[in-house]
Amino acid sequence: MDRPQILVTNDDGIFAPGIKALIEVAKEIGDAYVVAPDKPQSGQGHAITITSPIRLKKVKQFDGVESYACSGTPVDCVKLAKNVLFPDHDFDICVSGINHGSNAAINIIYSGTMSAAMEASIDRINAIGFSLLDYSQEADFSASQDYAKKLIEQMLANTSKGKGLLLNVNIPKLPLSYIKGTKICKQGAGNWVENYQEGSDPRGGKYYWLDGKFVNKELDEASDLWALKNGYVSIVPSMHDLTDYSVMEQIDYFEI
Amino acid sequence: MDRPQILVTNDDGIFAPGIKALIEVAKEIGDAYVVAPDKPQSGQGHAITITSPIRLKKVKQFDGVESYACSGTPVDCVKLAKNVLFPDHDFDICVSGINHGSNAAINIIYSGTMSAAMEASIDRINAIGFSLLDYSQEADFSASQDYAKKLIEQMLANTSKGKGLLLNVNIPKLPLSYIKGTKICKQGAGNWVENYQEGSDPRGGKYYWLDGKFVNKELDEASDLWALKNGYVSIVPSMHDLTDYSVMEQIDYFEI
Repeated sequence: MDRPQILVTNDDGIFAPGIKALIEVAKEIGDAYVVAPDKPQSGQGHAITITSPIRLKKVKQFDGVESYACSGTPVDCVKLAKNVLFPDHDFDICVSGINHGSNAAINIIYSGTMSAAMEASIDRINAIGFSLLDYSQEADFSASQDYAKKLIEQMLANTSKGKGLLLNVNIPKLPLSYIKGTKICKQGAGNWVENYQEGSDPRGGKYYWLDGKFVNKELDEASDLWALKNGYVSIVPSMHDLTDYSVMEQIDYFEI
Repeated sequence: MDRPQILVTNDDGIFAPGIKALIEVAKEIGDAYVVAPDKPQSGQGHAITITSPIRLKKVKQFDGVESYACSGTPVDCVKLAKNVLFPDHDFDICVSGINHGSNAAINIIYSGTMSAAMEASIDRINAIGFSLLDYSQEADFSASQDYAKKLIEQMLANTSKGKGLLLNVNIPKLPLSYIKGTKICKQGAGNWVENYQEGSDPRGGKYYWLDGKFVNKELDEASDLWALKNGYVSIVPSMHDLTDYSVMEQIDYFEI
């Protein structure tokens, strides 16, 4: 079998420890190609750069791996990989991360890591976004690497190429021996409670800075939040069809 | 009955003709409050501003309507409206737009207009995003205003407050008398084919600038793309649960 062709990206930027950990895994499995933001891009969601030009810079920090730093968003990285850098390349899989911090539950909506993976899946490339529930720059990615390797191998072996399957994988902050395994889940129902910091800049201008905390009210054992709280790696198959089919029949009063 | 309390936002910015058209409609129906980006923010998706402060500036261009220009993204606008500007305010509805250009099909993913409306719906405020299939600054919003008024009135009259219903409404570029009515649809399956413009800046640095065209391969009469092509206003009930429940049973090979 030819070596699997693996596109690697993230949202924490090309200098984040998490992408280094993921590239190490990708290199063991196949040929890795990296296009990642040149700076942190957390919370960029599915943003794309329309009104300004984007720069690409070849970087050499990953031995033997063709790598580019991109001035745009995580989704821009995937679009440029497909259209500019590797237009004739037939990627078997796109992996994004390993994100520093959770992308479980509603976080998928805000996550550049998951949006980059989704962009690949829109183009029918099977894709996985990996996130470790640890924001620290010194986070231990070894258990995440172990699961990333197994899950990428499963996808390459068992998911039809070109299906565009998208997985949101979150890994609890636990040593490998404490993790109970993986669990296929639905997106949990927690939410953020915002708390904006108000302040004044050196010239007296008022500003607001987003802070907040995630409130996990989820009791459903089928959810990713439950799985993570109980020591499992959560896997949520995700999609870009946002239609709420369940309410279609109930809203005929909008037919005018 | 008390006058409905209406939060208005958009992604084209507070100076765009489309938001002016929507505020006119909102003022006829109830009390309007405006928080919108201080510059165009198309394609921002569900991006939020984390790593820098956000500014708010009270503006006076809309007679009798409390209005703020926000330096952040469309989603930031909604978060600041709820948490900083109007924390004790119980909005009946959030309306976003009227967007200059289509947000049908996959465009919902990239759209700041729809992400702002979605952010309100995450907080259980019923919300509608309106988009006119005309990018021009001189677009005629009169037919869009007519439908916006009717649909906002329907939502206020018939959707339970606090349900968090989210509608993606697109209006074809047609005079009112040519529009056949509304149609409740599913998100269509068209996609973008990108074509990056390559160029050199004044100092010789290479850049890439996103261009592309939308390819509508949709034949399904249940889709928004079909409805719009056939002269209907499309209404797609949308949601932020991205779980693909349809594949959950098929991917047990990821359980390890």
